[in-house]
Amino acid sequence: MASCSSVVRSAVSVFFEYDTPRIAHIRSKKVGLINRLIQLTILGYIIGYVIVYKKGYQETDKVQSAVTTKLKGIIFSNDSNIPSIGVRTWDVADYVVPPQESNAFFVMTNVVPTPTQTQKTCPEDPTVDDIQCDSDEYCERRKGIAFLKGSGPLTGKCVDSDFPKFNGTKVCEIYGWCPVENDDMLQSLKEPVLQDAGNFTVFIKNNIEFPKFGVSRRNLPENEDDAYLSRCNYNPESSRDKFCPIFKLNTIVQGAGIEFNQIAAEGGVMQILIDWNCNLDHSISDCVPSYSFRRLDKGDFKISRGFNFRYANQFGVAQPDGSFKLYRNLYKAYGVRFLVTVQGTAGKFSVVPLLLNVGSGLALLSVATIICDIVVLYVLKARHFYRDKKYLDIKGPDAFEVLKEDSECSDGDNTPGRKPTFTESGSVSATDASTSQVR
Amino acid sequence: MASCSSVVRSAVSVFFEYDTPRIAHIRSKKVGLINRLIQLTILGYIIGYVIVYKKGYQETDKVQSAVTTKLKGIIFSNDSNIPSIGVRTWDVADYVVPPQESNAFFVMTNVVPTPTQTQKTCPEDPTVDDIQCDSDEYCERRKGIAFLKGSGPLTGKCVDSDFPKFNGTKVCEIYGWCPVENDDMLQSLKEPVLQDAGNFTVFIKNNIEFPKFGVSRRNLPENEDDAYLSRCNYNPESSRDKFCPIFKLNTIVQGAGIEFNQIAAEGGVMQILIDWNCNLDHSISDCVPSYSFRRLDKGDFKISRGFNFRYANQFGVAQPDGSFKLYRNLYKAYGVRFLVTVQGTAGKFSVVPLLLNVGSGLALLSVATIICDIVVLYVLKARHFYRDKKYLDIKGPDAFEVLKEDSECSDGDNTPGRKPTFTESGSVSATDASTSQVR
Amino acid sequence: MASCSSVVRSAVSVFFEYDTPRIAHIRSKKVGLINRLIQLTILGYIIGYVIVYKKGYQETDKVQSAVTTKLKGIIFSNDSNIPSIGVRTWDVADYVVPPQESNAFFVMTNVVPTPTQTQKTCPEDPTVDDIQCDSDEYCERRKGIAFLKGSGPLTGKCVDSDFPKFNGTKVCEIYGWCPVENDDMLQSLKEPVLQDAGNFTVFIKNNIEFPKFGVSRRNLPENEDDAYLSRCNYNPESSRDKFCPIFKLNTIVQGAGIEFNQIAAEGGVMQILIDWNCNLDHSISDCVPSYSFRRLDKGDFKISRGFNFRYANQFGVAQPDGSFKLYRNLYKAYGVRFLVTVQGTAGKFSVVPLLLNVGSGLALLSVATIICDIVVLYVLKARHFYRDKKYLDIKGPDAFEVLKEDSECSDGDNTPGRKPTFTESGSVSATDASTSQVR
Repeated sequence: MASCSSVVRSAVSVFFEYDTPRIAHIRSKKVGLINRLIQLTILGYIIGYVIVYKKGYQETDKVQSAVTTKLKGIIFSNDSNIPSIGVRTWDVADYVVPPQESNAFFVMTNVVPTPTQTQKTCPEDPTVDDIQCDSDEYCERRKGIAFLKGSGPLTGKCVDSDFPKFNGTKVCEIYGWCPVENDDMLQSLKEPVLQDAGNFTVFIKNNIEFPKFGVSRRNLPENEDDAYLSRCNYNPESSRDKFCPIFKLNTIVQGAGIEFNQIAAEGGVMQILIDWNCNLDHSISDCVPSYSFRRLDKGDFKISRGFNFRYANQFGVAQPDGSFKLYRNLYKAYGVRFLVTVQGTAGKFSVVPLLLNVGSGLALLSVATIICDIVVLYVLKARHFYRDKKYLDIKGPDAFEVLKEDSECSDGDNTPGRKPTFTESGSVSATDASTSQVR
Repeated sequence: MASCSSVVRSAVSVFFEYDTPRIAHIRSKKVGLINRLIQLTILGYIIGYVIVYKKGYQETDKVQSAVTTKLKGIIFSNDSNIPSIGVRTWDVADYVVPPQESNAFFVMTNVVPTPTQTQKTCPEDPTVDDIQCDSDEYCERRKGIAFLKGSGPLTGKCVDSDFPKFNGTKVCEIYGWCPVENDDMLQSLKEPVLQDAGNFTVFIKNNIEFPKFGVSRRNLPENEDDAYLSRCNYNPESSRDKFCPIFKLNTIVQGAGIEFNQIAAEGGVMQILIDWNCNLDHSISDCVPSYSFRRLDKGDFKISRGFNFRYANQFGVAQPDGSFKLYRNLYKAYGVRFLVTVQGTAGKFSVVPLLLNVGSGLALLSVATIICDIVVLYVLKARHFYRDKKYLDIKGPDAFEVLKEDSECSDGDNTPGRKPTFTESGSVSATDASTSQVR
Repeated sequence: MASCSSVVRSAVSVFFEYDTPRIAHIRSKKVGLINRLIQLTILGYIIGYVIVYKKGYQETDKVQSAVTTKLKGIIFSNDSNIPSIGVRTWDVADYVVPPQESNAFFVMTNVVPTPTQTQKTCPEDPTVDDIQCDSDEYCERRKGIAFLKGSGPLTGKCVDSDFPKFNGTKVCEIYGWCPVENDDMLQSLKEPVLQDAGNFTVFIKNNIEFPKFGVSRRNLPENEDDAYLSRCNYNPESSRDKFCPIFKLNTIVQGAGIEFNQIAAEGGVMQILIDWNCNLDHSISDCVPSYSFRRLDKGDFKISRGFNFRYANQFGVAQPDGSFKLYRNLYKAYGVRFLVTVQGTAGKFSVVPLLLNVGSGLALLSVATIICDIVVLYVLKARHFYRDKKYLDIKGPDAFEVLKEDSECSDGDNTPGRKPTFTESGSVSATDASTSQVR
């Protein structure tokens, strides 16, 4: 009947039970202080750093963004001494190549044009390795070979160079786009052709979204009128203009700590960083972008410094016989490549991350107990006293023992009949343990 | 000899020991229920949410992807009233600018051509600020200045505008690409030049890889034949066509909840999202993409709405004297920019994340004990009774004490000779504590 | 007065207290071994895997990068049998389209040129579906229709095809860019036009930054001189050349396990992976990139295999009447698209991640105790004995009880006067519990 009641109780009582560890409450100035100090440090870290500073109570979402850019600006270059450039005006369609890109745009600041090239034979660039010759034999031996850095295969002839600076030099003739490009004009330029490109403005349209929170924003101040937006220029100092989405290239380059003319001659790569770090627990109108600028190529590459590339406009020219001959205008464009990087995260209160941070925080708290236990059990003079209190020594039936009768006990383990006995002895040895036997 | 045996034992026995906290097993309806409820909640969260729902047992890997796009479609535009467009056919090489991009493509829907511009002098666009004049002096004063939104530097002359709408208006003359662009034609268009671009199709080839798991997939249904793939069109409703990689632009735009003609006139930016969320514990053939579409520019920018840019084709024209004169065809292209974003993660069972989640889960369980302890020790009437059971009060040698003899003890701490004494007194005070002394 | 002293003590003593769980120290070979083994496994995992192998003691930062590429190489193609190509030299400005991109570049390996197209009427490509006709009626019925894969709207006339291979076939006439493109030349090519593009070299300039640590690096060996850098070619085998930033396209393609001529004919998409995995606890000079190569399009697409796209150069041709007629050179370019992906993380010692990893590690340790408790309390023969030691059974005033007097007690809960009584009985039942009463 007792067993019955026990069965009933154990079955139901499981819902009305509660296990809590038994605690040794030690009153000691030394340990107490150590304990509290460590606990305070950990609590401070969890609450102050993880929860408050790192916003451990927020669920976060990365920004999704679309960037389109629109450049404005006109430059008039009067380089009549350089026929390939001459007197002309440069507009957006001239200096933005390619006309549009994702999250990037290129602005030409300097250029080496080689107009109306066509496929025929002409003297190679004298600066190419091993190209200078004194007789046809030299070139004949290399006939048909196209040097990696040359302009075409050698025809085998040795002819006079058409480069003014190399007047009188003889070079091998090649077959390819002729005349070949000649960089010498760069020296005769007092300054980069589009030196003033720093005055161009770029309108950066940036629409972003935090999909998880269904929040969409754009880098356009809401409370401004069109008149302002068509006039304004970004200015980090001004509390109003620092939200203007129209940037002078000078401002961008200076924002990276350099002057435009430093980068204009050889070109380079700049990064425009748009940061959207939004706390959606606050007003949505506080979710505004902040801009920063960096130079990505440090401009100190030993070889092929800066940034330049070649592109060509091909066109056909009608011949008397009605056929068309292929011509092209080649441009070696130096300039600044701007990469627009949009980054940032939005945070909004959520119970899940909070629980997780609290959970791992509690785990840390146990560190305090561990350290103090070490102090109490191994460092302090009174360690044996504390150990007695903290530990209840239990000698199990198969305890590792050097004394005779215990080992018998463990054998007895297998014979149910003797169970009460070792339980007895066990409880006995336990009581002994707590008084003297331990250690 | 006892000490000797103890040394031996402690040395070896460390491998045969096991420490488990001593537990106060409280039988109480109130606390028991609270305890179980909290535990169930936490277990439910860990198992149900973290492990099962969030697949906490899986190791994950981000998708690596390559996207190439191929557009198809022809449009015939009969705008004979607008000479710059006229009667012509538009094909891929005309309306995709630039011809290829990474994860993006642009489709022109409307265009303002300005053919055969060349560098000379001509009247400026009358809509530019401060450009209208009544006499040469006005322009003379601004000679050489290139307005940011103008087309070139002023020559100083005041001439008649060549814009039909501004017949009779006098504007300053500029030097640059002439004639200057004139947007008026847009008004005379009944609809965007490439209004029907919505019927174009784009074949999106997407090869993805989950490097960590060595799994490669592509957005092409395996079990389909070429005939189907060259014919099919993506259709989210159809269970078969929703895996077809060929999309009508109309379908994409409508997928974002707008009509193509809304976006065709001024242009815009669309996003094509390809989601690869694969559970590699299931069959690999279930690892298929799902497509969704969004409009990224909300199209409500107050200034410079939509999306447009300018590009030009330059070409030389042979002159009687054998030289070449530089000309260009300028295009202001309005259109839709499509960004293809591939995202997704693959998950596969792994023991490491499982352990980590269980670990932090267990830490959370301690929350239950903490809450119940608060109830038991501070809320319940019987709190003092429970406290007696849970806590063993130990008065250490340096305990903080107001009574005379204890403070003596703590002094005694430093004299080894008296150690047994305070251990004694300590254990005594402890026993007292567990019966009456506490609180 | 005693209560007074208690108040004072409890107020101050809170700083000099320390709670540590009371432990049942079980000496048992079985359980002890199980316990130690599990603990060792977990410790091994935490220290060996989480802390050491996974560098759990490091704070990490993702790489920020800028990539610019510069191609070099000349090809001479002698296809005089194919007039549209003929005898010509190809250079960078010819085979890189568009001239520059972010983190990517395209190299043309094969091409189908269709020179000097203009807007007029001509026979459609006979391979277009349903285009072949025998009489004008057939085309008349489809007049004005522009087939999706055609070149323009039908004029309604049925004319002879101008495709040599389809000599004698009659097709409908279209209005559009004429003559229409004809792929047949591909068959008459013995090999891709730019077959030797594998010998081109690409100089990949990669500047990276780890913003969090303020570390900037670039993929250029510091200790090398310009002579070497202008000459060297990347070679994974050589300990010196494996840091050379100049790559032969052959090397890249072979690095992905394929031959260049396999990919040259139809084109494809390759990925150049630059890994920057830096341990900033070591010397900064060990922070160097490693390169790997993959083919992203597996090249086994059933339809539209490989990678190709169309682009055109438009130009005007002066007419006798002084007007300009629009012409274009159309190119169908086959080639290899190279995507440059820069990835990697830098790690630096930081105490915060270390603490977090230790914290979650400690949580895991409790797993050992849990498993052993199960063994001790439910598996072993001596489980009842151990349970007595581990648990102190406390019957609370509102314990779930079938016996009469207890239920009275819980009623008594509400009468303060009887409190001592139940506390008494409680402590009694507790002592009983620890000896015999439990279960």
